[in-house]
Amino acid sequence: MTKNRLNRLRIEMDKAGVDVYVMTLADYHMSEYVGDYFKEIEFISGFTGTNATMVVTHEEAGLWTDGRYFIQARQQLSGTTIRLYEEGTEGVPTVMEFLEKHLSDKSTLGFDGRIFSLEWYEKVQKLCDAKGAMMLTDENLVSPFFKKRPPLPQNKVWILEDKYSGRSCADKLKDVRAVMKERGADGFLLTSLYDIAWLLNLRGDDIHCVPVFMSYLYMTMDSCTLYADSRDFDESLMKYLSAEGIVQRPYDRVYSDLNHISEKNVIIDPRVVNSELVNEFPSQVKLIRCENPTRLMKAVKNPVEVANTRKAHLEDGVAVTRFIYWLKHSIGVEEITEMSAADKLLEFRKAALDFLDISFDTISAYRENAALMHYEPGHDHEVELHPEGMLLVDSGGHYLNGTTDVTRTIVLGDISDKEKECFTRVLRSHLRLLGAHFPKGVCGANLDVLARGPMWDLGLDYRCGTGHGVGHILNVHEGPNAFRWNPKNPDDLVPLVPGMITSDEPGLYFEDEFGIRTESELLVVEDQKTEYGQFYRFEDLTYAPIDLDAVIPEKLTQYERKALNAYHADVYEALAPLLPKEEAAWLKEATRAV
Amino acid sequence: MTKNRLNRLRIEMDKAGVDVYVMTLADYHMSEYVGDYFKEIEFISGFTGTNATMVVTHEEAGLWTDGRYFIQARQQLSGTTIRLYEEGTEGVPTVMEFLEKHLSDKSTLGFDGRIFSLEWYEKVQKLCDAKGAMMLTDENLVSPFFKKRPPLPQNKVWILEDKYSGRSCADKLKDVRAVMKERGADGFLLTSLYDIAWLLNLRGDDIHCVPVFMSYLYMTMDSCTLYADSRDFDESLMKYLSAEGIVQRPYDRVYSDLNHISEKNVIIDPRVVNSELVNEFPSQVKLIRCENPTRLMKAVKNPVEVANTRKAHLEDGVAVTRFIYWLKHSIGVEEITEMSAADKLLEFRKAALDFLDISFDTISAYRENAALMHYEPGHDHEVELHPEGMLLVDSGGHYLNGTTDVTRTIVLGDISDKEKECFTRVLRSHLRLLGAHFPKGVCGANLDVLARGPMWDLGLDYRCGTGHGVGHILNVHEGPNAFRWNPKNPDDLVPLVPGMITSDEPGLYFEDEFGIRTESELLVVEDQKTEYGQFYRFEDLTYAPIDLDAVIPEKLTQYERKALNAYHADVYEALAPLLPKEEAAWLKEATRAV
Repeated sequence: MTKNRLNRLRIEMDKAGVDVYVMTLADYHMSEYVGDYFKEIEFISGFTGTNATMVVTHEEAGLWTDGRYFIQARQQLSGTTIRLYEEGTEGVPTVMEFLEKHLSDKSTLGFDGRIFSLEWYEKVQKLCDAKGAMMLTDENLVSPFFKKRPPLPQNKVWILEDKYSGRSCADKLKDVRAVMKERGADGFLLTSLYDIAWLLNLRGDDIHCVPVFMSYLYMTMDSCTLYADSRDFDESLMKYLSAEGIVQRPYDRVYSDLNHISEKNVIIDPRVVNSELVNEFPSQVKLIRCENPTRLMKAVKNPVEVANTRKAHLEDGVAVTRFIYWLKHSIGVEEITEMSAADKLLEFRKAALDFLDISFDTISAYRENAALMHYEPGHDHEVELHPEGMLLVDSGGHYLNGTTDVTRTIVLGDISDKEKECFTRVLRSHLRLLGAHFPKGVCGANLDVLARGPMWDLGLDYRCGTGHGVGHILNVHEGPNAFRWNPKNPDDLVPLVPGMITSDEPGLYFEDEFGIRTESELLVVEDQKTEYGQFYRFEDLTYAPIDLDAVIPEKLTQYERKALNAYHADVYEALAPLLPKEEAAWLKEATRAV
Repeated sequence: MTKNRLNRLRIEMDKAGVDVYVMTLADYHMSEYVGDYFKEIEFISGFTGTNATMVVTHEEAGLWTDGRYFIQARQQLSGTTIRLYEEGTEGVPTVMEFLEKHLSDKSTLGFDGRIFSLEWYEKVQKLCDAKGAMMLTDENLVSPFFKKRPPLPQNKVWILEDKYSGRSCADKLKDVRAVMKERGADGFLLTSLYDIAWLLNLRGDDIHCVPVFMSYLYMTMDSCTLYADSRDFDESLMKYLSAEGIVQRPYDRVYSDLNHISEKNVIIDPRVVNSELVNEFPSQVKLIRCENPTRLMKAVKNPVEVANTRKAHLEDGVAVTRFIYWLKHSIGVEEITEMSAADKLLEFRKAALDFLDISFDTISAYRENAALMHYEPGHDHEVELHPEGMLLVDSGGHYLNGTTDVTRTIVLGDISDKEKECFTRVLRSHLRLLGAHFPKGVCGANLDVLARGPMWDLGLDYRCGTGHGVGHILNVHEGPNAFRWNPKNPDDLVPLVPGMITSDEPGLYFEDEFGIRTESELLVVEDQKTEYGQFYRFEDLTYAPIDLDAVIPEKLTQYERKALNAYHADVYEALAPLLPKEEAAWLKEATRAV
């Protein structure tokens, strides 16, 4: 199938006179997760990871993805003629290096400019200029034969009340205009779906597990236009928009409208805005290139969001803990599969009154499946669980109160010494980061080594960040805050400040053996203020026992052991009153001091 | 005196029509340490720290310095009308913020453009433009009354043979030209004294403790001109230069010569080149602004430099260890002062055949004096040592084999529990960084928290980097490598690579009580290569016992204790054969496992 589709693409390339065609898994908004409409690479290659770029020439086809997906990509691409390029691995060329090698003054590079950022476009343009190659960016060469391309989603949009958002849309617009003024801007084109939803206190359902809606936003000092299809805007929503002074226009109209704006200095985020949009600006517009001002505002949760998030985590902790109890007591008694376990967990989550949806597809990965860091179980490949080995469950929920993301690796029966050693090492990493104290100004990049150190000592590592920012009823992954020693872009080197929530999820993954990850979410809070300045520390928002059946206490330092016991005492204290009696009794034992 | 000189300066400001005058402790090459010729701020204010900027208006006078000098500056400025601005402290305006507040369209800002970098100049220019203020940059207003300004130094310049430099001047010039080509440059103006000395394999004696010589260098793809006064160039040196194809011209001639260059694309480092020089370029010159290509080359020591440095550290370790032995056995027996102790240490260092000079003024600081991080003892303020408390000795030497920098805090008698607790905590910091393993790509900024973590946990800190790069018979402080979570400039965010040598010197300082610092030098070396890439680790180059009299072993983790014992075993094994018998026997005890 892959072969046919690749051939078909090459025919389209011939027709269009394109020698090198690039595709990427992105939508017109550079969203991390995208609607099915945009899954061209999966259609062509069969690869289902959430990060992929493909380059096709007449002789070669390559697919680039990151460490989270190496094992999965090796499996899904095996038997195809598509070569896997493992990003970040020494000696592996980047997409740009590949293009550099394959372009000449006789060749034409093609891509759909709407799914590539301005930043990427400009890099490629520079390369093409240097090589004398041509560019074709306004044709999508997959569309002619991607007949079953699903439609662009248009689901219901709803208002997140101020008691949940913590700050009114009017106030947020004011904040943004203050930044615009500071930067000398009279216009701001916002294309990030997360940021639009955050700014307007609206939510939707257009991306699986991400409650946003397809839209663009353009604002000036006294106007704000939302480009979104209104089919599913109900009357109250239209009233809300009009009360906030927001004009609604059809989604696609943004392109032609931008032709006629009269502003002179417009803020755009070159990493987020798609390259075709920028081409629409009239000539008087001077671009002010910077990170969307909304990005950092959104990352620093306000007091209402923080208080609500704490509640959401209690609800989520009850669900996860009940799930672990159920799993430990049912394994070997009834038939359980990875998928049925995930379903059971969803059932527990649904018990919370304000539960909205899962915040991402649950990763329920048994034994060696957990080595695929982002493995997804499925009814089409049921894997039965047995009373041995470990099940890694990475899951989360959107609640009206907030969003959660938690991973526990659960012991189902006998496990090896190596598994225990590794579990304990992952735990050390997890606890060391959790226990950090640091002064104002420190970034996640400064702290990452706390988690990675115990891995690096053995020449081990995990091929992803240690943690990501968590959106508030938005994308579960958000920036700029992260724990990552080598941030992908310098804008992400931002100081950690109170209100930021970042996951702490080190892991160890051994192909064909097992995978372990322990993840909680950390909120930055104030610590003491001394002559050396204001210090911060982390508050662990996540309540769920860490499986002591896999911990070797002697391998923890005294500090780490103390931290584990303190965490477990907190978990018990918080959850016990919310659990059925039997489960509370079990939790007491599961959270005992070691 | 200070008051008179300030008034005198204000008279000069009046004459020149200057409302705000800025001085900084720098030479025409942005050297860290400068010749006495440049010590205008000390002349005006009495402050002797090595980092200072002063701003004088008709009403105010402010002096800015960094955390190393806060306590010292408070003392030296007390009784003057000069206000101390403690850099990096919350709420304290920066020089630029101060200028912003004090400039208007009615004022003129004056400074000597030769002692300010192009980068600084451009920032100030932008500020003045915004404020409508005038600038006067070609007059030094201190010179008219700084009658005793010492002359610019012109000491002997000598050749560092290839067996010491490890790479010939010709090869280095080739390396630089390769970078020039890569960057599209046909010219390169190099003004850093360290880099010129490194590039030409020459050394001098024009800055106290820094074996460089006053010079500029301008090179093209086929020429190289050294601007340096030849008074002290002997015949062999002139022959050497001519053999290397280097033309010598008088030091000051660089300004007029730059007027007539024919190159079009010239590399300059905006942070190092002085602003007046750049004004001399003819109009066809396009500046290629980047870090001096020599900076990173110089920082990565070649195999000969590394092997020689290991030898230098053995020689230095013998001297420091003999000094500690002497001090421990002589205290209470004979009269010893901070200064006489420093002299004694020099005596031990001089025993090494290839010893050249100390690499910086020895810090020999007793008890509360050690709280002044960069305290210098002096014969004008002799402080007697007693068999109680601790003496902090931070010292180093230049040897033909290399440069050293080592700090040990030595127990002279009874010390308090707090002193022991703090000593142990500093040791933990020191050992945690020393023990790091990390993959290719990691920077010092990623690792700094390993050292600072134990301090931050208590709301403590030290007001300087954890470590600096070490020059090879050059400035003992060099970049870009450093252990600093917040590097002063982004160019310093460079990955650590084998051959880099960086100090590891955490400390704790309590004003009016005591100061503790433990410093060794760490060489980056290869560790294992795994599926996660090439890992690196540190080799401790410094051999000197860490005073166990101040260590509370129970406060170390098992890992830290193991690391301390391993280090001490190394020290004993390396030094014992080189020490007199009695001292070797003592060392065995001083390095016992705890």
